[in-house]
Amino acid sequence: MHARFYAPNAQVSGELIALPQEEAQHAARVLRLGVGAAIRVFNGCGGEFDATIETLTKQGATVRVGEPRTAAPEPRVSVTLVQAVLKGDKMDDVVRDAVMLGASAIYPVVTARTEISLAAVERSSRRERWQRVAVSSAKQCGRAIVPTIAVPRGFDAVPEAITSLNIPSPALMLVEPSAADTAVSLGEIESTPPREASLIIGPEGGWDEHELALAAQTCRLVSIGSRTIRADAMALVALSAVFALWKEF
Amino acid sequence: MHARFYAPNAQVSGELIALPQEEAQHAARVLRLGVGAAIRVFNGCGGEFDATIETLTKQGATVRVGEPRTAAPEPRVSVTLVQAVLKGDKMDDVVRDAVMLGASAIYPVVTARTEISLAAVERSSRRERWQRVAVSSAKQCGRAIVPTIAVPRGFDAVPEAITSLNIPSPALMLVEPSAADTAVSLGEIESTPPREASLIIGPEGGWDEHELALAAQTCRLVSIGSRTIRADAMALVALSAVFALWKEF
Repeated sequence: MHARFYAPNAQVSGELIALPQEEAQHAARVLRLGVGAAIRVFNGCGGEFDATIETLTKQGATVRVGEPRTAAPEPRVSVTLVQAVLKGDKMDDVVRDAVMLGASAIYPVVTARTEISLAAVERSSRRERWQRVAVSSAKQCGRAIVPTIAVPRGFDAVPEAITSLNIPSPALMLVEPSAADTAVSLGEIESTPPREASLIIGPEGGWDEHELALAAQTCRLVSIGSRTIRADAMALVALSAVFALWKEF
Repeated sequence: MHARFYAPNAQVSGELIALPQEEAQHAARVLRLGVGAAIRVFNGCGGEFDATIETLTKQGATVRVGEPRTAAPEPRVSVTLVQAVLKGDKMDDVVRDAVMLGASAIYPVVTARTEISLAAVERSSRRERWQRVAVSSAKQCGRAIVPTIAVPRGFDAVPEAITSLNIPSPALMLVEPSAADTAVSLGEIESTPPREASLIIGPEGGWDEHELALAAQTCRLVSIGSRTIRADAMALVALSAVFALWKEF
């Protein structure tokens, strides 16, 4: 298998396109590829092609787009991950894992118990970093689609967004078993795969009562098992569980 | 919820027992608890009790075992994780995650493509470290059982061990979709929960042909999805998937 590169401009066989700066550096400095090297490129929107490096300088690289190739199939259920921003670099890991498993989009949200404020998230370049993590994960796992990282927003906006269909329904909000009387266990959700769904996952400190009440109006509250799952592992656990239930695995 | 401590000697209400050195230090130095503090103790074999700190010195701590308490329920399916030793600290993360999700036992194995030799694993104190990681994870996730970390061994011994029933059957060996023609996807396994099962997960470089042939005699080869899952995430993904299929979640 040839090395894979992210090339958003790869759309039509035969065209000569530039690789993004980071990808060109990866080809030249890490993999030490040269002119004429056979590679694969994917455009992040589902397109995957053979390609050949035509020029490679310190300024960048151009590649000739070759024959289209079949990329790793996407899940039939399009799952949007709504994830409360986690501490430190943990959100990077969640983005990496969610892309690897096949999430369609990632909505970072700031909840009552999120340790970083929405203003601080917006000031930082976190969203750009998460998008780079998503590209890197797509390269490694073989996806030709790079999920969008949405603009971070407050969790208050989420139930409203679900209602106005910006976030796919059914929306499953993961809660601790003790958090809500109305929660069902994940095994009780419909085993018939929906066309799309959302998973909503809280921060290290969990949801507060107001958020649970707000979400109960538009989401299904679901719990996973009877043990305490670490916040930064919950996305991987929940995505694995629903993809297993919906026969994606 | 009171702080939880691992106390393997906690067996009978009313007894005065010593906490292990590490747990005593955690109580005194990190949590700054004092004499009379109400805590919870679990013995690693399923027992959980209220307890009270009676003495706390630099030399250690004694606690009075109180009323028994109901611990977080264990999965009905007893799942043994057979995991190829991974690079660096990644095995620590796998042990932590597998304990959190509810694995019953963990068998570290050295395969053809494992980067560290069996001799080097045996010389190091890795097994003791993994056991400490298991204790720590049980404390955090609420389990009263600390899974055993088996003595590391070569993978050659594993199919033989399955035959002689040292490792529970059915044994599901996780393979990449392209690795074996005989692999079925995980969604095709029986949805009726077995009483016990094993999951066998390879190292970063995957299985070699000899290992696949050997395993095919005693294991079912199963694949998960069509994307490449990182070796250090596979245990969490596979455990989540089978627990979802078998209605533990």
